[in-house]
Amino acid sequence: MLTLGSIVLGVSDMSRAVAFWTAALGYAPRGGLVEDDWTVLVPAGGGGVQLALGLSGSPVQEHPRVHLDLYAGDAADQAAEVERLVALGAGRVDWDLYPEDPDFVVLADTEGNRFCVIDTSRG
Amino acid sequence: MLTLGSIVLGVSDMSRAVAFWTAALGYAPRGGLVEDDWTVLVPAGGGGVQLALGLSGSPVQEHPRVHLDLYAGDAADQAAEVERLVALGAGRVDWDLYPEDPDFVVLADTEGNRFCVIDTSRG
Repeated sequence: MLTLGSIVLGVSDMSRAVAFWTAALGYAPRGGLVEDDWTVLVPAGGGGVQLALGLSGSPVQEHPRVHLDLYAGDAADQAAEVERLVALGAGRVDWDLYPEDPDFVVLADTEGNRFCVIDTSRG
Repeated sequence: MLTLGSIVLGVSDMSRAVAFWTAALGYAPRGGLVEDDWTVLVPAGGGGVQLALGLSGSPVQEHPRVHLDLYAGDAADQAAEVERLVALGAGRVDWDLYPEDPDFVVLADTEGNRFCVIDTSRG
């Protein structure tokens, strides 16, 4: 059966992107292998979907057609994770489409790829 | 700990996208809930990453900055899965960046989102 093997994010600086995403998610390069143009990250504890990083000249979309949702446990966890990610190099995004009282925070990784951090306690 | 909860794909026709992706991956709407603008699909057998579909006006990128890699077992499985996905409504893509003897085939879902089907036996 076909499986959803990995999500591929475009990056411009591989070592910077690997440093960010391994720390962000507790992932590690598959087989310890980091190439300049392609690296597959896997959960360090096993299981879970892979995150691949590929060198890309395609521009970042301000309102991405495809993006990642990262899950936090509750509002306090979400706030702590946002601070942790920003300390790791994520950028805060002045998102223009927030609803009233959003359950998500929009950040950008070190490569500019926008993603959300979700407070999953809100359902 | 922060987890990679879901990948969000932009769609223009929710019911069409749900029909395609549930059949493609053996996923089902979470809680049986399909909304016009937002649906989270989960593996019907449990486990695995979620695939979320969100109504989006952002354009498809011909060379996507972010995309999905779907894994097939070997070359024959890859060929069979490509035919199955095309029968489900995927489009064949005249990809201009294929290397010689590629291990992947580029398709587009019913919403135009480009993704790859990988022959994982190639390593």
